[in-house]
Amino acid sequence: MNEKIRGRLLIIGGAEDKKGECQILNKVVELLDHKLSKLIILTTATRFPEEVGKEYQEIFMNLGLKEVEAINIESRDKADDTEIVNKIKNSAGVFFTGGDQLRITSLLGGSKVFGALHQIYRQGKLIAGTSAGAAVMSGTMIVKGESDDTPKKCTLKMAPGMGLLEEVIIDQHFAQRGRIGRLLLAIAQNPYMLGIGIDEDTAILVNSTGRFRVIGSQTATIVDGSQISHTNVSELESNQPLGLLDVKLHVIPAGYEYDLKSKQVMIPQEDDLENI
Amino acid sequence: MNEKIRGRLLIIGGAEDKKGECQILNKVVELLDHKLSKLIILTTATRFPEEVGKEYQEIFMNLGLKEVEAINIESRDKADDTEIVNKIKNSAGVFFTGGDQLRITSLLGGSKVFGALHQIYRQGKLIAGTSAGAAVMSGTMIVKGESDDTPKKCTLKMAPGMGLLEEVIIDQHFAQRGRIGRLLLAIAQNPYMLGIGIDEDTAILVNSTGRFRVIGSQTATIVDGSQISHTNVSELESNQPLGLLDVKLHVIPAGYEYDLKSKQVMIPQEDDLENI
Repeated sequence: MNEKIRGRLLIIGGAEDKKGECQILNKVVELLDHKLSKLIILTTATRFPEEVGKEYQEIFMNLGLKEVEAINIESRDKADDTEIVNKIKNSAGVFFTGGDQLRITSLLGGSKVFGALHQIYRQGKLIAGTSAGAAVMSGTMIVKGESDDTPKKCTLKMAPGMGLLEEVIIDQHFAQRGRIGRLLLAIAQNPYMLGIGIDEDTAILVNSTGRFRVIGSQTATIVDGSQISHTNVSELESNQPLGLLDVKLHVIPAGYEYDLKSKQVMIPQEDDLENI
Repeated sequence: MNEKIRGRLLIIGGAEDKKGECQILNKVVELLDHKLSKLIILTTATRFPEEVGKEYQEIFMNLGLKEVEAINIESRDKADDTEIVNKIKNSAGVFFTGGDQLRITSLLGGSKVFGALHQIYRQGKLIAGTSAGAAVMSGTMIVKGESDDTPKKCTLKMAPGMGLLEEVIIDQHFAQRGRIGRLLLAIAQNPYMLGIGIDEDTAILVNSTGRFRVIGSQTATIVDGSQISHTNVSELESNQPLGLLDVKLHVIPAGYEYDLKSKQVMIPQEDDLENI
């Protein structure tokens, strides 16, 4: 793991609780720098930016934030808009909604907003994202792939992500959509990458030292390919099934931590669990 | 792995091809001792024994068998019936259909038919089973558990199986129903067991030396718990998510072999692949 991890990322596996305890969304509020004014909701991923933006705005206001603004960047022009860029630079943090991860990267990639996001991230501000907004965090992201299927090359599409967290591949709605197969196939193609599958209503909070902690009601699944001894992935026809040996797998619920550099899990002590 | 493996088992992950090449069902035909007369279809698992029995009967006749008889044992009385017991003893092999695995074990467990099945298995005859008929092969079997879910104790039910293959837990429709979570949870409860998840239209052929080979169009997933360093499974409340570290995972398609004693995968050489 290199030195590219700087700020704080909250990477949410989608379908986070919005009506009950709101454990994860409360964590967003808790992590913001409250001397700064505003949380920005970026609705670029979704086809329903008004509804989704308004929903999150209301939730975050109810959770105690004073200023929340939803911004829909639906063109590359708008992604260079100075006013929006300044809003992001002056924000307390940014929250990416779900939708289609390719909308985020194709509209924001290389833009001034993209630059501003990296800038605030380097400054240690929070960048949070759920579902598609989680997938885009990594250097290479999964765009599409079968759920509940044997891993096959023909069904997996990857693309360059936002590059906020390098050397990992994130997958979301993980257990709920049966996505272990596609994550294994992604990791088989470059076992240097660490696969992180995040369940619904679950998040990983990555800090600047390259550790993350699981929060929320379900689990994160770590696919560590560093000991893979064989794969047939380069010889496969696109619809043939994968062969992949010696994957190391961890399933970790709330309170467990993972060090991206040492690839070690830290098991919570009893005291820790009370403070998740 | 102990000395209990004697005969040949063809353990099919369900939904095997019945209309195209019929690779797996052809393998059943190939493996039968053709000096003996008959393949017995045991339809105990299904609620539609007549239809299912007739379907397999027709398929196997079309694939070249001369004698195929479907027998529906729907009571414990019938499971002690001397005529049926003799038919099984004199058969070339037995094929268990899918349905409900608890119907198989609750009706046959400890009966004279159960004894006859173990007897022909010790003699080296083929016992094949698909779906529920695959699940019952092991000493302890999965009866019920969530698909596409984070592993949780409340949703997983296990029960004693037919005990033809000890020290493993089989799961079927594996990738297609997103069952990695429930198999991980089963293995967490006793990492001495080896988890074998078999995809649809895929089978493992276990021989008397304790090796199996994958056949069919998809993959088998091996969950090797021998290096598990930590699990929270004994402390969990029933609806809390599992923590499980250092699982070794293999995904193996047709042609790959696995040695249950040494827990090693044998990768096929190019020559082998032509003869799957």
